Amino acid sequence: MNFSSERLLRFTQDVFEHCGMNTTDAKLAAEVLVTADMRGIDSHGLARLSGYVRLYEAGRAKMNPDWKVIHETPSTATIDADGGLGLTVAPKAMQIAIDKAKQVGTGWVAIQNSNHFGIAAYHAMMALEYDMIGIAMTNASPLVAPTHSKERMLGTNPMCYVFPAGKHKPVVVDLATSTAANGKLEIAQRANKQVPKGWIMDKNGNDTTDPNALKDGGVLLPLGSGETKAGHKGFGLSAVVDIFSAVLSGANYGPWVPPFVSFLDPVQNQPGKGIGHFVGAMRIDAFRPAVDFKQHMDNWIDRFKIAEPIDANIPVVIPGEPELTAYAERSINGIPLNDKVIEDLTTLAKKLKIEF
Amino acid sequence: MNFSSERLLRFTQDVFEHCGMNTTDAKLAAEVLVTADMRGIDSHGLARLSGYVRLYEAGRAKMNPDWKVIHETPSTATIDADGGLGLTVAPKAMQIAIDKAKQVGTGWVAIQNSNHFGIAAYHAMMALEYDMIGIAMTNASPLVAPTHSKERMLGTNPMCYVFPAGKHKPVVVDLATSTAANGKLEIAQRANKQVPKGWIMDKNGNDTTDPNALKDGGVLLPLGSGETKAGHKGFGLSAVVDIFSAVLSGANYGPWVPPFVSFLDPVQNQPGKGIGHFVGAMRIDAFRPAVDFKQHMDNWIDRFKIAEPIDANIPVVIPGEPELTAYAERSINGIPLNDKVIEDLTTLAKKLKIEF
Repeated sequence: MNFSSERLLRFTQDVFEHCGMNTTDAKLAAEVLVTADMRGIDSHGLARLSGYVRLYEAGRAKMNPDWKVIHETPSTATIDADGGLGLTVAPKAMQIAIDKAKQVGTGWVAIQNSNHFGIAAYHAMMALEYDMIGIAMTNASPLVAPTHSKERMLGTNPMCYVFPAGKHKPVVVDLATSTAANGKLEIAQRANKQVPKGWIMDKNGNDTTDPNALKDGGVLLPLGSGETKAGHKGFGLSAVVDIFSAVLSGANYGPWVPPFVSFLDPVQNQPGKGIGHFVGAMRIDAFRPAVDFKQHMDNWIDRFKIAEPIDANIPVVIPGEPELTAYAERSINGIPLNDKVIEDLTTLAKKLKIEF
Repeated sequence: MNFSSERLLRFTQDVFEHCGMNTTDAKLAAEVLVTADMRGIDSHGLARLSGYVRLYEAGRAKMNPDWKVIHETPSTATIDADGGLGLTVAPKAMQIAIDKAKQVGTGWVAIQNSNHFGIAAYHAMMALEYDMIGIAMTNASPLVAPTHSKERMLGTNPMCYVFPAGKHKPVVVDLATSTAANGKLEIAQRANKQVPKGWIMDKNGNDTTDPNALKDGGVLLPLGSGETKAGHKGFGLSAVVDIFSAVLSGANYGPWVPPFVSFLDPVQNQPGKGIGHFVGAMRIDAFRPAVDFKQHMDNWIDRFKIAEPIDANIPVVIPGEPELTAYAERSINGIPLNDKVIEDLTTLAKKLKIEF
């Protein structure tokens, strides 16, 4: 069943306003979530809405946080998000990064004491309209084991880099630093299908293709999977995201990152506050004229599109292209929410006495 | 056969000076190369020395380039390396990044018209003594095929992030964005061993475990290998390195990156100049007090070291630890150059009439 983005935006805004969020932020949070659905990142859109509400109900997320800049230099800032949602605080942090980039060429903002910020690409892509490169990363609930370990120590810790182009759409590299993100496992679970070897280990550290092993105490593997395929590199990249997002900002890192799900309590003796994000903006013309950069980005894209394919019918996919295709398709046909999500939203609407 | 770092430093400096490099730069270039050997990155140390000389002899690398900053803002700069060696220009670029970070919190330098810069970690680690995070990346001769393609379009394009710690050694994440770097293939070739599936494809785009397939027109696979293991993420990361290093700086990108080996000519109609690098420095105390950051880095390291292992005898390895171990061991026992490298250096010494 398909839904228009307008309808989902309206509903999401209503839900957040019902929880006491101010109208401006509720609109923004709705836009971040619905943008995920529009881009085909179904795991990070409306599917998560009731989760945010439950975090709020559990007293673990504030709807109108008193966020503030607690430290800054001409090109940097650190924000205490005061337990707000990353959905609303990360765009404000990104705007600060953009403003600093306007002044001194680049801007970088670390955020502590936050909650899940939706898709990284939303925040990074804010840089595009200013002819800037956008960067966003976040740590997340621990699900991934470092190489040699079977313990959940890292989140799927995404990193996102966005580069403007000229005649072409921007290149958007947005990836979880695990081999598979949780969303792909959920799809396999629903379809009762096995997953490829190298995505997960069971709780004893054995390779498995059973997607349910994760719920049963298993772990996700870092990008690269096992050691012979360079899983230690995925671990290293995940560590980079964790350190930028949390050690630099003053948030929790590693196994101390509070879980997104409200039914799991945060662990005790946390070394930091909430979860952490890190965003950046770099003015292209702080390095070379934007028009030159964009022309060469077009050339880069054109050349990679015609790289000799293995199968003549399957060309190279430029990073960000699948999301653009989804966006275009869903702009016409609406967003196909799955039955479980519709049921979840219907229940939420009833509980809050809001029309869905 | 083992060699002291002093001996290799002296020899390398002599070689570069013989090629006309000034003494200061020759010392620096030697230090960058020998540091690679000391850290156990044998593929990027003395093994490459004769390659740099051949590039010089072929008129493709200048020993005393007239490098200059061609554009800058308070937090950024772009350098034209004038066809010099990255070995000497990248440390200068990194120093500029550090100086800018002192002033405005962070500093970022893109370099065009350069040649191979050795190990990324050398440059990134320069930030450590200033309590800064160091970043370095570079593009390189095309050997890696993007997902769905069998064409050499990208280098092994390394990215390196270095984070200072307190009582512990720094965390050094330094990785090629391919599943395996060329060095690992060379080891397998010499040992006449097969390599794991997922490292390379032959020239027809078929998976192979024959390490010689690369020389025979094959390609390396991006980190993650095939599509089910998320090789498209490795492609995305490699693209990030290529764009930062070259599209932003004005260097060549993708398949136009000039080959390191002098017997292959650069392709015609290049869109940029030479190869490109990108370096950055971020002052820790532009975000939070350095002492707090370093204490939490120690805590991060301590916690990851005791993450529950799969095999009780194989603990988690912190990024950078193997290189530290190699460094400590080689400081005592010297650097074990392999026979082919010794032969290569002996030939070089004879040709240049320098004592080895």
